[in-house]
Amino acid sequence: MPPLPPGSTIGILGGGQLGRMLALAASQLGLKSHIYAPEDDSPAFDVSAARTIASYDDEAALRAFAGAIDVATYEFENVPAATVDFLSGMIPVRPGAKALACAQDRINEKTLARELNVGTAAFAPISSLEDLHKHLRAIGTPSVLKTRRLGYDGKGQAKILEASDAAAAWTAMRNQPSILEGFVNFRSEVSVVAARALDGTFRAFDVTENEHRDHILHRSIAPARLSPSAAEEGAAIARRFAEALDYVGVFAIEFFVVSDSGRDTLLVNEIAPRVHNSGHWTMDGAVTSQFEQHIRAVAGWPLGSVAMRAPGAEMVNLIGEDIRDWQKIAAEPGAFLHHYGKREARAGRKMGHVNRLLSEAPN
Amino acid sequence: MPPLPPGSTIGILGGGQLGRMLALAASQLGLKSHIYAPEDDSPAFDVSAARTIASYDDEAALRAFAGAIDVATYEFENVPAATVDFLSGMIPVRPGAKALACAQDRINEKTLARELNVGTAAFAPISSLEDLHKHLRAIGTPSVLKTRRLGYDGKGQAKILEASDAAAAWTAMRNQPSILEGFVNFRSEVSVVAARALDGTFRAFDVTENEHRDHILHRSIAPARLSPSAAEEGAAIARRFAEALDYVGVFAIEFFVVSDSGRDTLLVNEIAPRVHNSGHWTMDGAVTSQFEQHIRAVAGWPLGSVAMRAPGAEMVNLIGEDIRDWQKIAAEPGAFLHHYGKREARAGRKMGHVNRLLSEAPN
Repeated sequence: MPPLPPGSTIGILGGGQLGRMLALAASQLGLKSHIYAPEDDSPAFDVSAARTIASYDDEAALRAFAGAIDVATYEFENVPAATVDFLSGMIPVRPGAKALACAQDRINEKTLARELNVGTAAFAPISSLEDLHKHLRAIGTPSVLKTRRLGYDGKGQAKILEASDAAAAWTAMRNQPSILEGFVNFRSEVSVVAARALDGTFRAFDVTENEHRDHILHRSIAPARLSPSAAEEGAAIARRFAEALDYVGVFAIEFFVVSDSGRDTLLVNEIAPRVHNSGHWTMDGAVTSQFEQHIRAVAGWPLGSVAMRAPGAEMVNLIGEDIRDWQKIAAEPGAFLHHYGKREARAGRKMGHVNRLLSEAPN
Repeated sequence: MPPLPPGSTIGILGGGQLGRMLALAASQLGLKSHIYAPEDDSPAFDVSAARTIASYDDEAALRAFAGAIDVATYEFENVPAATVDFLSGMIPVRPGAKALACAQDRINEKTLARELNVGTAAFAPISSLEDLHKHLRAIGTPSVLKTRRLGYDGKGQAKILEASDAAAAWTAMRNQPSILEGFVNFRSEVSVVAARALDGTFRAFDVTENEHRDHILHRSIAPARLSPSAAEEGAAIARRFAEALDYVGVFAIEFFVVSDSGRDTLLVNEIAPRVHNSGHWTMDGAVTSQFEQHIRAVAGWPLGSVAMRAPGAEMVNLIGEDIRDWQKIAAEPGAFLHHYGKREARAGRKMGHVNRLLSEAPN
């Protein structure tokens, strides 16, 4: 299939900062963006050629959207599977329904990891308090109970420090199908942001090391402080996932790094079938940003170079009130400020980020 | 005056590729763009939050535009002075009318250069064939007759190789006030792209060396192959112009480099009171692009770093049919493709450009 020529339109489901940065990347390549989002103040609207404000189950709006675009993609994994199925009947949606079905359910993610012979925390599906009691005996404490679907940034999670916490944890899940995960005593958290093109070409950016605060990504550095063999393993695992899911586009796999007799081992924590916050450093720190890479893949273009543009790179999120520092950051030599143009700086809301290049690799 | 906060709107007169790249740069900083242009298929519309399609003398449209924006700027120097005057009565226009008046008239440009003690080609204002004959005797041949106003990319110019060409050259000017310029036997053409902030801070990018084909910029490399003292002189001249014009924003000065007893001397050729094609390499080759730098200045922000991100950088324009190579360029490792999203690849039309970083400075 030939690549979509400049002038073609990429339809993007979701109008947040990821959709915004995808739209900006598309326009550099001469491609137009059409944003589909339910919120009328979506930050991506300000940089796109066209917009549809409608809910994800509005079939008439989706039909018109499909008629106005050449390919569809999405900026978040919680877009309803039915929406993607409906669009897929009319135009290509990349990545496809298979990737979405896997990433929308933590049990599917971890089951695929097992099939691919990739390590994860111990886990079990939980549908009742009885299930929970039973599996707690095998998995032990501390452990974490999470909803299988729709969790992000620590939402829909409950810690179980001892068996007596079980009932409260299950109540917090509000009867939603859940997953019990054994606690992992990790040394660090890293992610692999990678892309697979329409022709199957695969490229991974340097592994990124992530530091969270209050369950939200605070800071990423690249390359991650990791043994070379573990870094290679991370990219190899990402490739296996991409091939298993027949993936097209950028995705991220979050890993726990555990030290096992002095050797770094990677356990899959989560898969995001989209551009990812931990890949934001690529905007200034890699030859091709993850956003351009995703657009290239989705449009059927060859992937761009993933080479780093400096020995190291750092990304710090500007969450909520952090954004008030914009003037200070704007005046800092060599700081790359990215402001998402959101009106209201609510607590916990991602308002922007700042990238910095490092003259040495992190150590 | 405090800087315009993110969420503010930059009004941009002109909707071509320069307006488009300005709008993209603004959005990275959380600023919105409102494009004002007469053409309904302006490439900048696709990446801006708002647009006005109206002629530059439509006072009602200009009034509404002024009411919807926080500051105005322009992407080309041939915006009518009356338009800028009219807007200036309602909102700040940066750069201001003074810079525009200078840059719109080749005699004004060169007169200012003389006042600032900066070299130019020999020149004289021409209003009649008698003027032309008279000044040809002093300036000699070869020389060039140009309209004082509205010339670009070689339009409105006629070469005079010998005195007998004078009548034809004057006819080609169609009675417009003109300028006779002595021929300069230059070694190379270079430009200084620089910025002055609202608080008077001045920063110049590395001097760029430019190669033209058919009077249109074909290729730029940075840093220019120039003696260090001439490079310093270029930046110093740019600063003098900026201060004399009370300039706010990015501008470019094009110079001829002449070798004078083995020493590089700079003669001012032209001033562009706007972002400039010869500064496109900064998008990938400098910490701050000229587009972000202009937006920073216009919004009253501190200027960004002008440090180069590699020992050298190259920009090649994609003119007319050149754009057909987009697939080849997209597949070239390390090539930064910028496609302007214009529908029709007319001959001589700037359709895009490609940047490449060089591992060594040009020599």
